Amino acid sequence: MKATVHIFLKAGVLDVQGKAVEGALNGLAGTAGWSDVANVRVGKVLEFDLKSTDKASAEAEVKSMCEKLLANTVIESYRIEVA
Amino acid sequence: MKATVHIFLKAGVLDVQGKAVEGALNGLAGTAGWSDVANVRVGKVLEFDLKSTDKASAEAEVKSMCEKLLANTVIESYRIEVA
Repeated sequence: MKATVHIFLKAGVLDVQGKAVEGALNGLAGTAGWSDVANVRVGKVLEFDLKSTDKASAEAEVKSMCEKLLANTVIESYRIEVA
Repeated sequence: MKATVHIFLKAGVLDVQGKAVEGALNGLAGTAGWSDVANVRVGKVLEFDLKSTDKASAEAEVKSMCEKLLANTVIESYRIEVA
């Protein structure tokens, strides 16, 4: 099965990378008109293959990976898709 | 409108971050059984708001942002979702 994990900083945590991207996009507005971009959040996305063929067990496995290794759950939230 | 941009290294480009995550997941296999993880790819995901209300023009705008600022199109590919 193919798993996709999205990891974002939680809503209350300042996303400095997102702010930088927003500033860069707004700064280019003179030439391209991107001043209407707001609330940029930058996250990570991981895609990988799993041997498991059972969707429920695969989801539980990926959840365990996120809790233990992939995400820093103190400041990050994650979203799992298994297909 | 809300735009989501996924940016991944192109298929032929070595994804060292993905290899590191794969190694870490496999290395924890003794305790958690994650030796069945393969082909890990790590990418970036950007979410932001746009003032534009027309889907086609918003998509064109985001495509332009990707080409000019967000993605390094020599080694990275991107996927746009506007909703």
